[in-house]
Amino acid sequence: MPSRPNAAPATAETRASQRLVPVDHASVAFTGGFWESWTRTAREVTIPSQYRRLDEEGFLEVLDFGKPPSPLARPIQPSGLSMQHFFDSDFGKWIEAASYALKNHRDPEIEAKIDEIVEKLAEGQMADGYLNSWFIRREPEKRWTNLRDLHEMYSMGHLLEGAVAYFDATGKRRFLDVMIRAIDHIIDTFGPEPGKLRAYDAHEEIELALVKLYRVTRDPRHLSLATFFVDERGQRPFYYDEEARRRGEDPADYVYKTYAYSQAHKPVREQSEVVGHAVRAMYLFSAMADLAFETCDPSLKEACDRLFDDLVGRQLYVTGGLGPSASNEGFTRPFDLPNETAYAETCAAVALGFWTHRLAQTDLDARFTDRLETVLYNGALSGIARDGEHYFYENVLESHGQHRRWKWHYCPCCPTNIARLLTSLGQYVYSTRDDELAVHLYAESTAELSLGTRFVRLRQETLYPWDGDVRLRLTLEDPTSFKLSLRIPGWCRKAELTVNGETIDPVAATTKGYVSITRTWTNDDEIRLSFPMPVERLYAHPDASEDAGRVALRRGPVVYCVEEVDVGTVPQRLRLAAGASIEPRFDPDLLGGAVVLEGDALEAVPDAWSGDLYRTEPPVLTPRRFKAVPYHLWANRDPGAMQVWLLEA
Amino acid sequence: MPSRPNAAPATAETRASQRLVPVDHASVAFTGGFWESWTRTAREVTIPSQYRRLDEEGFLEVLDFGKPPSPLARPIQPSGLSMQHFFDSDFGKWIEAASYALKNHRDPEIEAKIDEIVEKLAEGQMADGYLNSWFIRREPEKRWTNLRDLHEMYSMGHLLEGAVAYFDATGKRRFLDVMIRAIDHIIDTFGPEPGKLRAYDAHEEIELALVKLYRVTRDPRHLSLATFFVDERGQRPFYYDEEARRRGEDPADYVYKTYAYSQAHKPVREQSEVVGHAVRAMYLFSAMADLAFETCDPSLKEACDRLFDDLVGRQLYVTGGLGPSASNEGFTRPFDLPNETAYAETCAAVALGFWTHRLAQTDLDARFTDRLETVLYNGALSGIARDGEHYFYENVLESHGQHRRWKWHYCPCCPTNIARLLTSLGQYVYSTRDDELAVHLYAESTAELSLGTRFVRLRQETLYPWDGDVRLRLTLEDPTSFKLSLRIPGWCRKAELTVNGETIDPVAATTKGYVSITRTWTNDDEIRLSFPMPVERLYAHPDASEDAGRVALRRGPVVYCVEEVDVGTVPQRLRLAAGASIEPRFDPDLLGGAVVLEGDALEAVPDAWSGDLYRTEPPVLTPRRFKAVPYHLWANRDPGAMQVWLLEA
Repeated sequence: MPSRPNAAPATAETRASQRLVPVDHASVAFTGGFWESWTRTAREVTIPSQYRRLDEEGFLEVLDFGKPPSPLARPIQPSGLSMQHFFDSDFGKWIEAASYALKNHRDPEIEAKIDEIVEKLAEGQMADGYLNSWFIRREPEKRWTNLRDLHEMYSMGHLLEGAVAYFDATGKRRFLDVMIRAIDHIIDTFGPEPGKLRAYDAHEEIELALVKLYRVTRDPRHLSLATFFVDERGQRPFYYDEEARRRGEDPADYVYKTYAYSQAHKPVREQSEVVGHAVRAMYLFSAMADLAFETCDPSLKEACDRLFDDLVGRQLYVTGGLGPSASNEGFTRPFDLPNETAYAETCAAVALGFWTHRLAQTDLDARFTDRLETVLYNGALSGIARDGEHYFYENVLESHGQHRRWKWHYCPCCPTNIARLLTSLGQYVYSTRDDELAVHLYAESTAELSLGTRFVRLRQETLYPWDGDVRLRLTLEDPTSFKLSLRIPGWCRKAELTVNGETIDPVAATTKGYVSITRTWTNDDEIRLSFPMPVERLYAHPDASEDAGRVALRRGPVVYCVEEVDVGTVPQRLRLAAGASIEPRFDPDLLGGAVVLEGDALEAVPDAWSGDLYRTEPPVLTPRRFKAVPYHLWANRDPGAMQVWLLEA
Repeated sequence: MPSRPNAAPATAETRASQRLVPVDHASVAFTGGFWESWTRTAREVTIPSQYRRLDEEGFLEVLDFGKPPSPLARPIQPSGLSMQHFFDSDFGKWIEAASYALKNHRDPEIEAKIDEIVEKLAEGQMADGYLNSWFIRREPEKRWTNLRDLHEMYSMGHLLEGAVAYFDATGKRRFLDVMIRAIDHIIDTFGPEPGKLRAYDAHEEIELALVKLYRVTRDPRHLSLATFFVDERGQRPFYYDEEARRRGEDPADYVYKTYAYSQAHKPVREQSEVVGHAVRAMYLFSAMADLAFETCDPSLKEACDRLFDDLVGRQLYVTGGLGPSASNEGFTRPFDLPNETAYAETCAAVALGFWTHRLAQTDLDARFTDRLETVLYNGALSGIARDGEHYFYENVLESHGQHRRWKWHYCPCCPTNIARLLTSLGQYVYSTRDDELAVHLYAESTAELSLGTRFVRLRQETLYPWDGDVRLRLTLEDPTSFKLSLRIPGWCRKAELTVNGETIDPVAATTKGYVSITRTWTNDDEIRLSFPMPVERLYAHPDASEDAGRVALRRGPVVYCVEEVDVGTVPQRLRLAAGASIEPRFDPDLLGGAVVLEGDALEAVPDAWSGDLYRTEPPVLTPRRFKAVPYHLWANRDPGAMQVWLLEA
């Protein structure tokens, strides 16, 4: 991989002044087009149906602190963990997702449900502030005895993110106060000071939740605690070794063998390869990006850059999926990207969106927001069905028809994760600072934004991602000078740009993938962008051997796949002739409307095959039309085989 | 698949008279060439080193019945099974393998070790004849309570095979008598009679061991018991359901969900798809072939034929490996043949050899012996290193360098299985009956055979499998009339045959892949066979999608692979141009000498690749020489990447 060009050393002050801040998600309204229907479905279908699932599946029963706990519905795993250990995280994440939706669409019924959960949590909270339903009800004596395996702070982190979001949406402080007490307890228990535990949860999450809390409270202890957890990670002697010995266990018996599983094999600033559990990695890196933002510590950003290079250069699926292996829910070795057995957990793709979005705030570089866009249109969105209430946990890139979206999962972490991404989607579209407005995403929408004390109304008119023409119109009370930075998508070879009809050369004006126009803007100024969207064949690095000899089809930011239901044969039999034309067509009837790709392919037919699997003559190839559909739409119709990487004849 | 041509209905009597009998393994001596070194290594290195491993790893301690059992070295799995449950099977199989070697090479040291094991078994055997070291020492109360999971009879079956082989090799009856008592106990406990359990072990094995015992004892009860186990399998209500309920368990909690895992989902005569655990399947089918032989029951042979068609038409690796999945150690769905994650357990390939060899005795058809040959040169032989003391359990067809042969395994079933195949290899070369001598395999060797009362000495001179010329010479005391049936390998397109210099058209004289010459043979008669061995590119059925667009190289019966150590790059980057010439060359220095294949390929080089895994330009292809080596020799040199199915450019 080429190394990143060295920027001139920047002082903490200049770095701080260059930071962008994401807009409030509620300030952006998707007024039509692609995201309007997805986000509306999330609010109207996903949020209520997830509450019903949580209720039906007994997740909320864990909050009946006054009653004896019900029998365990799911067994304890060899690691000592059960799914019930972290039920708190699931309704925590649901509250967070629901809260984002509530901010612009208050809903007394949903709020009543959340308030009920909050009251139960408050009731169950221990006198010292400790709050985790599993340990309080079932194993109070095991509190803080196994941070390596039992997700204790992970659960609290999700409750905390829920509390911050609910406070932001409703102004109700109750949940926030409960969680601040819980964090006070953690501050009393953990830290570098003598008498406290120098420990950190193996499943990262609370770190980024603490930064969110700090942004509400501005209490430096909240930021310090996050910093402590991140800095302490991977220090020697390993806390998990000591902790295991205190439990009377041999640290060598650790089921995952190495703390790389939790990115705790070495201090975070020494890490340069993305390893272990994919969701954990993305949550940690998101927290590192948050701290780099808050503290302007360049070493954390540099570690993030190295890890990002490793991810996109060697470990990322073309869909933005990541973490190929089920055995560790994570990474294996560079270029190991199996398609049919891809784990590529929805949560990991969602969290890659979190991370890249955070990185772009301190370093406005389309490398990051390009990947945010990739997961939004592909590897994360594939995790939820078009109906808003069926899901994928694993996002495979090939199927022989055995994959089905499910209504609920044994480990239902993904549904609430994709839900919170969708209900807060507006925040990803723009970032601002006093004198700059950055446009990361293109989507039919209106936004009401503040640049410092200035107020800007911005309307995007576009059929994106089905069409690459975008019209931005500014509504301003007074002429206002600021820099408008527009992302030129990395997939686009030849963007065109006009301001009030005047052409600007986007290449000359582009820095790190953003074209910047600094001027005094006036009301009704209009910017037009054109991103031509030819159908492209993508080739994988030669060491991504599962894709060798194959192509993936992409148009704009959307990656395509071929489904059996569209071609009348299994896509694994198809071969695309090199150079054969593939045409896009908008199909209004396909699951709400989508651009499909069509062309001529060849089919390897087994008609004349003998009873033996192998023969010395190549298979006969016969012509067949094919159609490809957006990957994120797969498995919404008749079940069947699917393939992203098509053989090139 | 084409159906098999219908033979004219045969009576049991004509079927019985057509049966062939494999020759005694000890009657064939590999006097040089390919198998001489492999079988000598098995005898001189593998057998003694396996005893040392069994001893070092504590397997033999389970026989110290007078002492309290040692702490469990390996945990009990969720199924209730631990590796220790079936340690008996491992030394049983080792005794069997050692005994084959002993027959022509008596060895007091090895015999003393076996006798010691036998005495301990005799000492531990319970008064009622029951014999299983796990249950006697650790869980006597659980005897015969869980045939679904605990391998109780599987272990006894392997002890029985060992006892039969040891008796045959040495004439010592002690072990045989111990095992006959154990079988008497099983006859008292299981069977169709009132008061007995209508049960059968989920892991087949004892069935074929009982047939071997019957062939020694001619006690009809031994054959009847095998027949009962095979016939009872899959009958409803399922015994395993009843048995689980007796243990207070819900049958629905069965960890493998369906009895197809053990081929017990339906009666064996109704089965037509090969399902479940691959070794179990092959052992069952071997027993079915044995019973078809002994009882001349056509329904069992017909079931075998259907299952064989399914296996070779839809489920067999090109190496003869089988059972693609680790999760059930077995079969998944037709055409699911992943290369890098191939489970393809050595035991399963060995047992496919057992099955196909048995089928050929009642139905002399090269379809069966072709597959025997395939596993011998490929998917079974790959399970043992050239040094005779390192092994593979899984026989992958692709590696990125992560695979290493091991000295011993957590579940060491494979080493003794490949050992018993090699030390008894002679039996697979010929079969006879009163008036026929069938030659299944070609190998430098001498043999002393009986056709009824006639004595025939046969010498093969050949460099097979490196060269396809074979000279057979007969030594006869008197002119003798019999049918000589010579297998024309299925891979051979144009065989040539002469008898004493006179050409015979092998096509005209061939039935089901065997060319038969009936005449009065005289001393020094010479048969010459020539099987041209061009390098062939094999293509897989279009639905074997992992191999689409790829070729495997085969020459004669030997399948090839490319190893990183030979090409200086990972083979996954190589592409073979269609039609490009590939030349064989005998390399005397390669691991004892082997034919390698060499030619020009293209390498997809990543030199100019950017930091992104994907791009719109295809990879640059540059010329590179390549070399392929026999698959069975892989992973005997520097570790590295390997590939059988090479991309065709």
